[in-house]
Amino acid sequence: MADHYDVLAIGNAIVDVLASHPDSFLEEKGIPKGSMRLISSEEAAALYASMGPGREISGGSAANTSAGIAAMGGRAAFVGRVSDDQLGRVFAHDIRAAGVDYRTPAATSGPPTGQCLIIVSPDAQRTMNTFLGSCQEVDEPDVEESMVKAAAITYFEGYLWDPPAPIRAIRKAKAIARAADRKVALTLSDVFCVEGHRAEFLDMMRSGLVDIAFANENEAKSLFQTDSMEVAIEGLSKAVPLAVVTRSEKGAIVVNGTGRWEVPVTAAARVLDTTGAGDLFAAGFLTGYTQGRALKDCAVMGTIAAAEVIEHYGARPEADLQARVKAVLGG
Amino acid sequence: MADHYDVLAIGNAIVDVLASHPDSFLEEKGIPKGSMRLISSEEAAALYASMGPGREISGGSAANTSAGIAAMGGRAAFVGRVSDDQLGRVFAHDIRAAGVDYRTPAATSGPPTGQCLIIVSPDAQRTMNTFLGSCQEVDEPDVEESMVKAAAITYFEGYLWDPPAPIRAIRKAKAIARAADRKVALTLSDVFCVEGHRAEFLDMMRSGLVDIAFANENEAKSLFQTDSMEVAIEGLSKAVPLAVVTRSEKGAIVVNGTGRWEVPVTAAARVLDTTGAGDLFAAGFLTGYTQGRALKDCAVMGTIAAAEVIEHYGARPEADLQARVKAVLGG
Repeated sequence: MADHYDVLAIGNAIVDVLASHPDSFLEEKGIPKGSMRLISSEEAAALYASMGPGREISGGSAANTSAGIAAMGGRAAFVGRVSDDQLGRVFAHDIRAAGVDYRTPAATSGPPTGQCLIIVSPDAQRTMNTFLGSCQEVDEPDVEESMVKAAAITYFEGYLWDPPAPIRAIRKAKAIARAADRKVALTLSDVFCVEGHRAEFLDMMRSGLVDIAFANENEAKSLFQTDSMEVAIEGLSKAVPLAVVTRSEKGAIVVNGTGRWEVPVTAAARVLDTTGAGDLFAAGFLTGYTQGRALKDCAVMGTIAAAEVIEHYGARPEADLQARVKAVLGG
Repeated sequence: MADHYDVLAIGNAIVDVLASHPDSFLEEKGIPKGSMRLISSEEAAALYASMGPGREISGGSAANTSAGIAAMGGRAAFVGRVSDDQLGRVFAHDIRAAGVDYRTPAATSGPPTGQCLIIVSPDAQRTMNTFLGSCQEVDEPDVEESMVKAAAITYFEGYLWDPPAPIRAIRKAKAIARAADRKVALTLSDVFCVEGHRAEFLDMMRSGLVDIAFANENEAKSLFQTDSMEVAIEGLSKAVPLAVVTRSEKGAIVVNGTGRWEVPVTAAARVLDTTGAGDLFAAGFLTGYTQGRALKDCAVMGTIAAAEVIEHYGARPEADLQARVKAVLGG
């Protein structure tokens, strides 16, 4: 059976609300800079009321990755639940306009579309406060067997691992992918996800359910409860066939059973907003991977996509990523 | 009575949806580049469906001007109607977070919050397609007598001159401002507004109801049905005590009963999106005016505010405008 998709991404369907604030704003509110936390609708309303003028741009980690894959010329699909409201229509419009196949029906009752209130600091770091809303209601029926079977890789974000319905959706998708001999990729998403679901993540990896794992340095260390990057890399290399660790300005490390590759970052023209850097790294890497490129080149593609997204506000690509890849790696 | 506001702006409450497209997109749809047109909800839905990924940023011409005045250190209020929906809450949040006093109650029935679908071309020109939605329902009761009396200047956008309810609101505000010996300012907004309401605009001006008029070159020429800039300037100088004509990259011309001043543009660091340039020019000019500055310096402040807003996507200021003014004109 031919693959219709290079990657099917499953994650939270989120609209980002970005506002710029000095560090004192976060300090006054006691919000750790650079963190991601889940907040209730009441907390979201209170934080939004105190935030400066915003701009609304579609986001969501795996959704950003799917948009990035489409921008790099890959065929991508996304599963995630919005509500039938204005921001839900914005999310659906934007992801489809980015070239991603998106079919999950909008919820017609329950909470509104999920939102992430993002404080962008003067040094371009982002602090994320997420109200999941209708994201939590994606469930088994939303995972169409034919879509999973049609995707070379099914990619999950760790952020999904909390409410029961999305976990059921993930389990169904994993089972279909496995049975159809498709690859499964996982991003650990955030240290809080790793801390909350360490045993399950490790069990999934060690029982052979994950082919490709993405983590940043802190997530990898947290997974193996170590302060040593080397111990974490060693742990990942034993747990999964292929692991990629992103290290912010230090670039990325790729390990598989036979080797290890390190790549430096691709320089950004300017650094305005780091939201989505990890998501776009995964997009670049996975696009290269499904094109059959060498692992080191896959990682270079990841750094090219990450560099573009930090040059502007918003977590989805705006420049011509295929041209940037071609300029570095050739046709 | 002390002024509580430097400027009370009355206009359409709009959320902009910006997407970038090559010129061919407009050509295929037969939409004149650089134009502004009103569209129905059906046209809006069809155009939105064909637009690329968007970013939602609060807009509206007079609303942008009020946000600009607040950013320049002035005291601003805004009157305009949103609907009680997600984009209405975004609009209300953003204008208040910008420091503008905004009290107009949201409509709880009727059409949704007004939206402007803006196509940004590679050369930074914007083409605007506006669905007025609940904007059309601002009416007399929304104009609080105390607010108009408390404002040194009440500022209207020409875009208001179409549906009957906003026209009633304008007439009420003008009457209050006149009776309280406050100044009235008007921007002609767009050639289509001038073509539709030429007689009324001229009559308002010639009967002494307008103290300050803003127009761009095409609007001024259209008002006097001439191809000659000099004829248009001459016409304006006779019709109103103070007129300002903005001329894109050629700067601005200020005329009053005693003289004429020309100022060049302030160079922008880059030109990304020209949306809001005229609105922010008016913000800078009016702020300087209420500070009692020389008319030429008022115009320089207009060019400083306009230069900032074209450096980024979105029609409201993001950089520190007071610092930029201080750097040019001193404290």
